Amino acid sequence: MTDFAAWSRALQARMETALAAALPDAAIAPTRLHEAMRYAVLGGGKRVRPMLAFAAGEAVGAPLPAVERAACAVELIHAYSLIHDDLPCMDDDALRRGKPTCHVRFDEATALLAGDALHSLAFELLAAPHAGTDADARLDMLALLARAAGSRGMCGGQAVDLAATGSTLDLAELEFMHIHKTGALIEAAVLLGASAGGLPDADTRARLRRYAHGVGLAFQVMDDVLDAETDTATLGKTAGKDAAQGKATYLTLMSVREARAYATELVERSLAAVAPFGAAGTRLADIARFIVERRY
Amino acid sequence: MTDFAAWSRALQARMETALAAALPDAAIAPTRLHEAMRYAVLGGGKRVRPMLAFAAGEAVGAPLPAVERAACAVELIHAYSLIHDDLPCMDDDALRRGKPTCHVRFDEATALLAGDALHSLAFELLAAPHAGTDADARLDMLALLARAAGSRGMCGGQAVDLAATGSTLDLAELEFMHIHKTGALIEAAVLLGASAGGLPDADTRARLRRYAHGVGLAFQVMDDVLDAETDTATLGKTAGKDAAQGKATYLTLMSVREARAYATELVERSLAAVAPFGAAGTRLADIARFIVERRY
Repeated sequence: MTDFAAWSRALQARMETALAAALPDAAIAPTRLHEAMRYAVLGGGKRVRPMLAFAAGEAVGAPLPAVERAACAVELIHAYSLIHDDLPCMDDDALRRGKPTCHVRFDEATALLAGDALHSLAFELLAAPHAGTDADARLDMLALLARAAGSRGMCGGQAVDLAATGSTLDLAELEFMHIHKTGALIEAAVLLGASAGGLPDADTRARLRRYAHGVGLAFQVMDDVLDAETDTATLGKTAGKDAAQGKATYLTLMSVREARAYATELVERSLAAVAPFGAAGTRLADIARFIVERRY
Repeated sequence: MTDFAAWSRALQARMETALAAALPDAAIAPTRLHEAMRYAVLGGGKRVRPMLAFAAGEAVGAPLPAVERAACAVELIHAYSLIHDDLPCMDDDALRRGKPTCHVRFDEATALLAGDALHSLAFELLAAPHAGTDADARLDMLALLARAAGSRGMCGGQAVDLAATGSTLDLAELEFMHIHKTGALIEAAVLLGASAGGLPDADTRARLRRYAHGVGLAFQVMDDVLDAETDTATLGKTAGKDAAQGKATYLTLMSVREARAYATELVERSLAAVAPFGAAGTRLADIARFIVERRY
């Protein structure tokens, strides 16, 4: 995985530059809003979704500049969702990526608006004319991202999560929540990366969806394991919070050992789904393996 | 204006049906979120932006089903912005369209998510394949709406409004705020309505922008006049609130009489901009006149 570590570091640097260019300059009015947007997006994050977009783009041979734009759009949606998720009326969290959350650093109203503005910016970026992706593919990517972000995707999953707080979910209910809350955007990252050069055929899409499904759930399982086992400093966000808030996690349904075994099984399914890509699917496979091996 | 009154009532009914169809069914999970989305969008509202979209569509001869979709997208953005604007960390308002605001009727977290989901839905709706609008026009409409909603449009205007609360703005600063906070989306409604059948030429666009600029500001001037002169029951939202919150309004800069005269002057400019449309521009002219004559 030495090569993967170098690849992901290079990609994080590339995304930092691309996102900095996509965001409005902090010197442009309204400056405080633009500062808050940049604060929430730049200077941190594992960039898991961009990695998935680039890896999927590589699997189908999509042009990198088009993949980069898709990756930025997905990451902006992710960043907006984190700002809103951290607000007092939601998870009320003070720490994110090792820094004060947006509403703590600025104020609630500015954080709310910064999230809203990032949300719009994601679509503005995808809709803007750019070389490498034809109009139909861009519209398809826009529709896919909007659906993944909406009430039958990410927002819907957050609503289910809210409703479930304090109650016991069975495995099917827990996974319904995760498939929406984080799975939808992970799938969008994979599919948008693969669509950036033109729409892939139905079989390729189906394989990528299977891959994303396994990777998305494995990521959540490992999040719960790491949340329970890791300290706040290493995690960069408040550790042990889900359990303290009475949220349903995989560890209320299985032991840490079982959870790790389940994550491995999910990742095996993802690896099988992308095996037909051969060498072109190496990065997708690397990311899947990274998810069960990561420490933070 | 009898004909205009009948036209606007018919359009309100048409929009109610179209929005009800565009929104997820309240029986679909997550039901509480979908209920909140429907609550905030349906059953009220003057539908000023959809009226503008239809009137602009009529001016250029755009097909009605395509205009309707554009009108729905703009109205969903408007509805999401009202939900977020009413939240305790923003204007903290309890009444909207004569009903309890979304966070009062549901809860803050659900209201936040309902706004977010409506925001995504607007773009999902525009990006979805539909007859009557070619791919390039749809992408252009998406880019335009996203920009109008974002930090250099509506969200930016809200940020300026927040920053200005309690301070005295001069006319130029007040209008900078309004041009962003409400003007951007009003312009988007006009331009999207006109683009629904295919992109209009540069001259038509420029005229529609001039029209939207005058109408948007006149609408705000009259909002301030009505906010000061009208009771809460007639207004359907809390009256006298802006003044009580120390917000800058036109009436801190001019008398009611002067404000009415200024609104009339702005509307005259709008009427001049759309005069070249001849009879096709009748609805645009009607709306401009309605704005200075309305009572709520």
